[in-house]
Amino acid sequence: MRIDKLAVIGVGLIGASCALALRAAGAVSHVIGVGRSQSNLDRALARGAIDRGVLLEADWTPEVADADLVLIAIPAAQYRPVLAALGAALQKRTVVTDAGSTKQDVVLAARETLRTKLPQFVPGHPIAGNERSGADAGDASLYVGRQVILTPLPETSPDAYALVADFWTACGARVARLDPARHDQVLAAVSHLPHLLASALVAELDSRKDSDEYFGNAGSGFRDFTRIAGSSPEMWRDISLANRDALLGELDAYLAQLTHLRARLAASDGAALEATYANAQRARRAWIEAIEAAEKPPAPDQESGK
Amino acid sequence: MRIDKLAVIGVGLIGASCALALRAAGAVSHVIGVGRSQSNLDRALARGAIDRGVLLEADWTPEVADADLVLIAIPAAQYRPVLAALGAALQKRTVVTDAGSTKQDVVLAARETLRTKLPQFVPGHPIAGNERSGADAGDASLYVGRQVILTPLPETSPDAYALVADFWTACGARVARLDPARHDQVLAAVSHLPHLLASALVAELDSRKDSDEYFGNAGSGFRDFTRIAGSSPEMWRDISLANRDALLGELDAYLAQLTHLRARLAASDGAALEATYANAQRARRAWIEAIEAAEKPPAPDQESGK
Repeated sequence: MRIDKLAVIGVGLIGASCALALRAAGAVSHVIGVGRSQSNLDRALARGAIDRGVLLEADWTPEVADADLVLIAIPAAQYRPVLAALGAALQKRTVVTDAGSTKQDVVLAARETLRTKLPQFVPGHPIAGNERSGADAGDASLYVGRQVILTPLPETSPDAYALVADFWTACGARVARLDPARHDQVLAAVSHLPHLLASALVAELDSRKDSDEYFGNAGSGFRDFTRIAGSSPEMWRDISLANRDALLGELDAYLAQLTHLRARLAASDGAALEATYANAQRARRAWIEAIEAAEKPPAPDQESGK
Repeated sequence: MRIDKLAVIGVGLIGASCALALRAAGAVSHVIGVGRSQSNLDRALARGAIDRGVLLEADWTPEVADADLVLIAIPAAQYRPVLAALGAALQKRTVVTDAGSTKQDVVLAARETLRTKLPQFVPGHPIAGNERSGADAGDASLYVGRQVILTPLPETSPDAYALVADFWTACGARVARLDPARHDQVLAAVSHLPHLLASALVAELDSRKDSDEYFGNAGSGFRDFTRIAGSSPEMWRDISLANRDALLGELDAYLAQLTHLRARLAASDGAALEATYANAQRARRAWIEAIEAAEKPPAPDQESGK
């Protein structure tokens, strides 16, 4: 796979990491970055993530319209004007993908803006990231061994899908395919709900008059449990609203589980508590083993020695 | 501070790490280890954590009764026979402390068993640990910069308290003092509840027919959020039961917060969600900065150059 011209709209952690990964793989010739801030574009240039930067407020579509691949890596709540501009300007051969955390809202926005260009769009979501942001956070190895979910539409062209799948594979990722609604349901459970749960705990403790004593005696378990509560409130507000119905459903399932556990605890039912804790330990261990196997780099060539 | 003879009852992660830390600090002459398994005692010997090992099923009290300090580092649910044996055998000068995760149950057991020796007992709880176990997991630096909570009783001798505080300081820890009931309330919120919450989520997802698809698309946020669900189900069952009332109270406060957030989400109240997420982010960042400052090693002597 080789991309002659890549356009990255939003050269932050996600976009810059893709560009750097493709560069490292020797899979791209030319990268155009489009962004809101000149200083971030300058940092992306300095890092070699992009060859040229264009401001989103400038007339960026001529720079992007003849790209082989356009990656949209801005918050999903800001997609509409970008998709509308692409819908008006895209050449037939240009494929568009994105990296948003929710997919049904993105699909809806794409349907309403891309119109006849819809077959060229392949919605995607890399399950990767960290709490850093901006082009400086870009990391060529961010996607190595990570899962990327693509959620093609019935209209999506098989060639467009294949290009985007190859693009992520070149970044080191594993590509999975899900229906957009199924994506949003699964992510509500394993990503959006944990963020809400961790934030709820920290905010509830913080609201207490004696919150210092709680935080002052918290350890590494609390630190890990609440790590996701450290990321952008605006982004998570948008994700929660965009995926409201699925998140409400997952929250209700969780509240039912907590209510059950509360009753077992109130009854001092040690066997039931232990069974839940043991199920969780076993399931988590199996999952960790599976992802560690998937993230392990390929075994070195045995003939190369050492 | 220098301890001539230390006895560690339970030479696992916690006990072995204390012994190794005191050794590294040159603050102990002789360490006796008491444990359930000869193989683990042998590993503790091999690692230099202890000088002599005695099985818990053997007649261990004569070995321990003349120690300067006895550290009980076994699960709290197994304390009673150990405390009863110590109550019968302890010399007047010997100080006893422990490392249990709950303190009111330990205080109750100590009152019923140590009797006239109660002033020699200083209940404690190091807020440190990881998912490893056994003497092999012992780490001389486990307590560096960590908080240890001591929960002395009205009867506790000030000299005994001072020795135990010095012992933990020599291990590199910071020592805080709380009432046993207050300890249990605070730890219910920042440790026992997060364990229950993380386990509940993993067990709920695991119970689904299509659980593979959920785990298969979970990322690093889920991994950190659920890390505590990876630890011993038996230990957490015992902690949950021992601290049942405080844990129920914290669970109810949390359920109230979740119910409030659910209503805000159902109303698509983005401002309320963002406010909660932003409060959580701000409070967590302030806490992380405080603990990083506390855990930072002392600044090097500026005159030493480099």
